[in-house]
Amino acid sequence: MSATEHPAAHSHLPEQHAPERKEPTFVFTERQVSEKSELARRFIETRASLNANVEKANNFLVKRFSNIDHNAYLEGTLPAKTKELMGLVASACLRCDDCIFYHAIQAYRLGVPRSEQEESLNVALVVGGSITVPHLRRVYELLEELYG
Amino acid sequence: MSATEHPAAHSHLPEQHAPERKEPTFVFTERQVSEKSELARRFIETRASLNANVEKANNFLVKRFSNIDHNAYLEGTLPAKTKELMGLVASACLRCDDCIFYHAIQAYRLGVPRSEQEESLNVALVVGGSITVPHLRRVYELLEELYG
Amino acid sequence: MSATEHPAAHSHLPEQHAPERKEPTFVFTERQVSEKSELARRFIETRASLNANVEKANNFLVKRFSNIDHNAYLEGTLPAKTKELMGLVASACLRCDDCIFYHAIQAYRLGVPRSEQEESLNVALVVGGSITVPHLRRVYELLEELYG
Amino acid sequence: MSATEHPAAHSHLPEQHAPERKEPTFVFTERQVSEKSELARRFIETRASLNANVEKANNFLVKRFSNIDHNAYLEGTLPAKTKELMGLVASACLRCDDCIFYHAIQAYRLGVPRSEQEESLNVALVVGGSITVPHLRRVYELLEELYG
Amino acid sequence: MSATEHPAAHSHLPEQHAPERKEPTFVFTERQVSEKSELARRFIETRASLNANVEKANNFLVKRFSNIDHNAYLEGTLPAKTKELMGLVASACLRCDDCIFYHAIQAYRLGVPRSEQEESLNVALVVGGSITVPHLRRVYELLEELYG
Amino acid sequence: MSATEHPAAHSHLPEQHAPERKEPTFVFTERQVSEKSELARRFIETRASLNANVEKANNFLVKRFSNIDHNAYLEGTLPAKTKELMGLVASACLRCDDCIFYHAIQAYRLGVPRSEQEESLNVALVVGGSITVPHLRRVYELLEELYG
Repeated sequence: MSATEHPAAHSHLPEQHAPERKEPTFVFTERQVSEKSELARRFIETRASLNANVEKANNFLVKRFSNIDHNAYLEGTLPAKTKELMGLVASACLRCDDCIFYHAIQAYRLGVPRSEQEESLNVALVVGGSITVPHLRRVYELLEELYG
Repeated sequence: MSATEHPAAHSHLPEQHAPERKEPTFVFTERQVSEKSELARRFIETRASLNANVEKANNFLVKRFSNIDHNAYLEGTLPAKTKELMGLVASACLRCDDCIFYHAIQAYRLGVPRSEQEESLNVALVVGGSITVPHLRRVYELLEELYG
Repeated sequence: MSATEHPAAHSHLPEQHAPERKEPTFVFTERQVSEKSELARRFIETRASLNANVEKANNFLVKRFSNIDHNAYLEGTLPAKTKELMGLVASACLRCDDCIFYHAIQAYRLGVPRSEQEESLNVALVVGGSITVPHLRRVYELLEELYG
Repeated sequence: MSATEHPAAHSHLPEQHAPERKEPTFVFTERQVSEKSELARRFIETRASLNANVEKANNFLVKRFSNIDHNAYLEGTLPAKTKELMGLVASACLRCDDCIFYHAIQAYRLGVPRSEQEESLNVALVVGGSITVPHLRRVYELLEELYG
Repeated sequence: MSATEHPAAHSHLPEQHAPERKEPTFVFTERQVSEKSELARRFIETRASLNANVEKANNFLVKRFSNIDHNAYLEGTLPAKTKELMGLVASACLRCDDCIFYHAIQAYRLGVPRSEQEESLNVALVVGGSITVPHLRRVYELLEELYG
Repeated sequence: MSATEHPAAHSHLPEQHAPERKEPTFVFTERQVSEKSELARRFIETRASLNANVEKANNFLVKRFSNIDHNAYLEGTLPAKTKELMGLVASACLRCDDCIFYHAIQAYRLGVPRSEQEESLNVALVVGGSITVPHLRRVYELLEELYG
């Protein structure tokens, strides 16, 4: 649903500049994660290859969306760590394995301890019910490889 | 899930300019719709009042999202009419009354005949099943007021 | 997603006749339910009025869908009671208040005891998680009026 | 939720005949699609094999549902092309890879250009959010094979 | 959403003891199912291996949730068979292949005939629409192996 | 889906005791919130009244679930504030107004500033897409009353 009553107004607005938002500092690179966990490696490689193909398409709206998406997880009022864990909870409730893996890996790269990942997943389990369990099983396997 | 592998890359990109996209031409104003249908009038008024409050908050990311959202329904490769009907199908499958009303009204304002609205809703009914039926009942009431 | 590989084949098939399926025997009429519960009365009346409007539209596909929908809950290999409770579980998991009320009322009309309604809702609560709780609260209010 | 207040009424109705609806004209056969794209070939073959097994079961209600499903995408008030793209949007919002592939292939077979597939997917991305992104990545790979 | 207004009250309550609930009597062991169906065998083995890893984590809340989950399908006011079929319907509506396979296998192990599994799936198909079809195709393949 | 391979094992386990978890310290009582915001007051009162009715039913499984649900939001490895905001994100992605209101109010009662609530909702908006917008509008109205 469009968020605006008078859409024309929007199209003439200069694109508002983002408030000062900082890229988070990663403790581990994607390469380091890939060396530690085979599950992570396969996920990261498949994703990179599929993304390269999407980028080739050069679709304007997809790019705009990616920019916003990226922006939502930067250091802000809330730490990047917290927002990656929120992304994890949302992904588990909506039951998307790729999204769950992405955010669990990002949180790991930011230095989030396993106990915080598990506690976040507990919120998702309670909110989302047993239908989330197969996804939790799979991310626990990833957590084992990353932190084990 | 973030759509990008190397998020930092994105943050340094200049914001890409939208391709030439045209605002659609509406056959009816929101006021005309409100005069024709009491259901539409209440929806439009409530939405305007809630939106005014959101705009007051002046949240950067919400504004960016609204711009993209608005962009997605402009005249493009596909006519705006078609994309409003796609928004209607998506909203009915995801079962959001407000979103259904919004797109049904936009389609009406663009001159879409009732038969096309119904045929779009049929796709939603088949894809989404009987769980969509209560929503279809309510939008049929709106269609009756708009086209009856 | 279309269920058939070669759609043309289907369109030439004579419409298959339904196996012998029996209408269930209701213990209570809708009128009796409406007299017992104010929540049920309002639901039944609103639904009847919205349905009358849908029927006026005389949409072919909606009618075909309604026939199948009706057929799914008839006495069959499984008793109608069991299938209404399945409809209740599905509706609670998919979080549709109207659908929940419909199936809870149908189950009541078929003579299902409250304990079976609650046990069915427990399955939905475990499968669907706490996001179903607001819906369970509302149907417990209905159950109280129906069985209290 | 049953769409009808008085279900018995339905069961005595003669099955209403469909309005004149035409099969769409395909530009490409499934075989041609399979020769062009390995992803499409695998999808089409798996689906055909699973469908053969479903058809063996000869379940009355499944067959009835398939007929309606098929009917929803025929040439009607809206062109078959448009309705396949609506099916694509719905499938992307509801995040079903098989359904997305099915409708993207059907749209391709009907001669829909890639730009219209992308613009439809943009509607799904905006409505459905980043949780749809992994599915969009996979269908972009299919689009590349089909149109590349 | 928390189900309680005054959460502190809960934390001081002694854990209520479960009413007398009986484990159901299985007609087939998991081993027997695995010998009959290759699809079941792979599912059961993968699940056991992933579960072993989850159990190693020894997460308190996951364990508590598992206990409730187990409890919901015991013999109660409703037979265990019926509740497994309800779990099947819920899983098909929420479109989780693992959950669908789990409940179809449990129902089979309890002696549920194929016709009752199909009739349950019909409720899911009507409630959930064509988006459930790819999942139904896959569980029909399992049913064929189990009952064929 | 049951989380356990050998369910019988579970039923003989002594109920594991919860690790030391602390109730969070609220800055505001529900009464104070109700005096500040009319929307909150109506929500809190309706919820209390519906909950009283659920508690009267004294359903064993509902009570067990409530205990777990309560437990998930206690002070733990992650602060209660963070977990309430995670509950907010999950509720917005799953689009449940009651759940959104509940967690926004709980977060407010714990002293979470408005900027953190908005940033959490931004994650939900990006993950969940425009279908969440009508819910965001409504919670922004609540935020205005609470923090305005």
